[in-house]
Amino acid sequence: MDQKLQAQYQKALDYHKGGKLRVEAKTSLKNQEDLSLAYSPGVAIPCKEIQKDPLKAYDYTSKCNLVAVISNGTAVLGLGDIGAQASKPVMEGKAILFKMFGGIDAFDIEVNEKNIDKFIDIVKAIAPTFGGINLEDIKAPECFEIERRLVEELDIPIMHDDQHGTAIISTAAIINASKIVQKPIESMRVVISGAGAAAIACAKMYKALGVKEIIMFDSRGVIHTGRNDIGIIKAEFATSKDYSSYKEALNGSDVFLGLSKADLLQADDIMGMNENPLIFAMSNPTPEILPEIVYEARRDAIMATGRSDYPNQINNVLGFPYIFKGAMSVRAKKINEEMKFAAAHALAELAREPIEPALDGIHGRKLVFGREYLVPSPFDSRLKEKISKAVADAAIKSGVARI
Amino acid sequence: MDQKLQAQYQKALDYHKGGKLRVEAKTSLKNQEDLSLAYSPGVAIPCKEIQKDPLKAYDYTSKCNLVAVISNGTAVLGLGDIGAQASKPVMEGKAILFKMFGGIDAFDIEVNEKNIDKFIDIVKAIAPTFGGINLEDIKAPECFEIERRLVEELDIPIMHDDQHGTAIISTAAIINASKIVQKPIESMRVVISGAGAAAIACAKMYKALGVKEIIMFDSRGVIHTGRNDIGIIKAEFATSKDYSSYKEALNGSDVFLGLSKADLLQADDIMGMNENPLIFAMSNPTPEILPEIVYEARRDAIMATGRSDYPNQINNVLGFPYIFKGAMSVRAKKINEEMKFAAAHALAELAREPIEPALDGIHGRKLVFGREYLVPSPFDSRLKEKISKAVADAAIKSGVARI
Repeated sequence: MDQKLQAQYQKALDYHKGGKLRVEAKTSLKNQEDLSLAYSPGVAIPCKEIQKDPLKAYDYTSKCNLVAVISNGTAVLGLGDIGAQASKPVMEGKAILFKMFGGIDAFDIEVNEKNIDKFIDIVKAIAPTFGGINLEDIKAPECFEIERRLVEELDIPIMHDDQHGTAIISTAAIINASKIVQKPIESMRVVISGAGAAAIACAKMYKALGVKEIIMFDSRGVIHTGRNDIGIIKAEFATSKDYSSYKEALNGSDVFLGLSKADLLQADDIMGMNENPLIFAMSNPTPEILPEIVYEARRDAIMATGRSDYPNQINNVLGFPYIFKGAMSVRAKKINEEMKFAAAHALAELAREPIEPALDGIHGRKLVFGREYLVPSPFDSRLKEKISKAVADAAIKSGVARI
Repeated sequence: MDQKLQAQYQKALDYHKGGKLRVEAKTSLKNQEDLSLAYSPGVAIPCKEIQKDPLKAYDYTSKCNLVAVISNGTAVLGLGDIGAQASKPVMEGKAILFKMFGGIDAFDIEVNEKNIDKFIDIVKAIAPTFGGINLEDIKAPECFEIERRLVEELDIPIMHDDQHGTAIISTAAIINASKIVQKPIESMRVVISGAGAAAIACAKMYKALGVKEIIMFDSRGVIHTGRNDIGIIKAEFATSKDYSSYKEALNGSDVFLGLSKADLLQADDIMGMNENPLIFAMSNPTPEILPEIVYEARRDAIMATGRSDYPNQINNVLGFPYIFKGAMSVRAKKINEEMKFAAAHALAELAREPIEPALDGIHGRKLVFGREYLVPSPFDSRLKEKISKAVADAAIKSGVARI
């Protein structure tokens, strides 16, 4: 390891010394009287109220603003299956993002269990503790059944952010790009590289949005009806045509969505795309194709990546803190499709609203709606109210709110 | 409900509005660089370190100072089996006591599961999250097997405080009372009222301390060898004689330990106890016999209760924050008997050491070692260092430390 890398390595370790989370009392604990309220005998009173009416737990416990970040460490960002214990720094990180951006108390739970049924039973058993559950870094295809069943069987907001985060934020970007290039979403053909949790969720959301045609590649090539090595989840997106390359699939397409690996595409691959192509290359830290290469080859392209140092960062942090905030503010029983679309539309709308001062204090970029500003900056202070409210309203309208 | 009660009721509910716990970031999150350390990509570095060596989780995650307060709500203080959800205010209260007294981050987990095996599996699965586990308010006899197996099968400090807390603190009080009345512990005959989790743990600890004879009563009467309605746990303390009453059992005894119910005894019952009887009446809020009655009947008695408004409060908060603190400071694999006795002896010793100013700021009592000051006040600032150190030293000496 060279000296610079070594220094970065040490910096990351130093930052993590002692962990990233602490727990504090919300209430006063100054004297014997406080103690007799916080604990015996006063505490018996809220207990009895909750025993009579379990929804009172939202009134008298931290449940009202508390999300669990739960993982079994089987698909940790770029690290793969590192196990529950080793995933803890990531989950603590996610928890503090909840706090920083959404003002939500979030606590990480690492679950040492890979079996789907057992994992579900464990999460269900500890669910009374929390007001919401953010599933994180659980590998596909297990994550699909785990999320589906937990949403079905529990009555608090649950979302596997790896699936829906990217789908919601990229949907917002597509909605806005569609306006800018004046091309209806219904007419778009989308090529997706990758068939993991995020890719499948994106494909489903785009389909629900009206996208005409989706061509999806996994690591073995295009997902088509002639293949017998694909499960039921991928089969939904199988095409009848067996494209031999990305270049062939991209020819005549409108959108490329990359959720696979670094440097997948060359300039040549995107030359046949339709006018004003949307190229969302979200592999991290190195995109499927670098913006520099795209702009050189296609001056009419609109680019997005997962990185903060390029414009149009598709960053999950634009979604999860506010989606949970909104859902929990109305004690929603779940996060449904209506709420996810409400978040995407609200994000798109927010980017179209003028912001003052219209200068990104971090990168010195102009935050003016257009090709290089499709979604808000993660540090946009309007997000918290705006997105949360849209999600809460959608929860009420779709009948899952409990206030 | 009369107006005064109504006001107290409302005060307790108001105190609990919004819950008692919040989660905060320990680390700086001021800019993009902080974010890139706390989350992707920097976070991958501690993850990899922990993957190589799981003990590194103590270095790079909150595990180093984090205790779970876990309950299934089956035996909540005076409320009984109110269920997981309704027990949450108590568990949050316990968690903030950990923070206030021990400086330990503690987080409550309510587990909706009564089956012993399933409960154990759940706790084991989520254990990577925590540096220690405080089991709380789990009913007997299930609590015995749950604790035994978790201690055996996990490698972090685990203690069911309802069992050992009272045992440790009352042991400290007995050690000191024995010195004051100059009566060796080995010569004492102890009558215990109650045969639940705390009573059994007390009996075991006193036995290990050398107490000669223990007579235990459950709600059906004395536990004796002629009964066929007692399980294996109580059977350890069955006497050969079938005492017909507390009065008969107390006759010629040295210690009464009450862990049962209010107003169990009359003055007449204690008249036959040996000289300088120790009467620990710990039913809460109303003791088995009030100190006023005891002192009127037996001026030579030494009294202790569970209440803060009488001298000699046997309060678990004197133990658990420091026992866990000490155990975790040396990354102990468990809390063993040596560590529990170390805590009891250190507590007894601390009460014997002069304290300045020797005046209890809350009750105006003199904190001078003697009949009315057998154990330290919960607000004694020396506890944190002294008790934790004794426990840590015992962990090292008994070979369960990992530093």
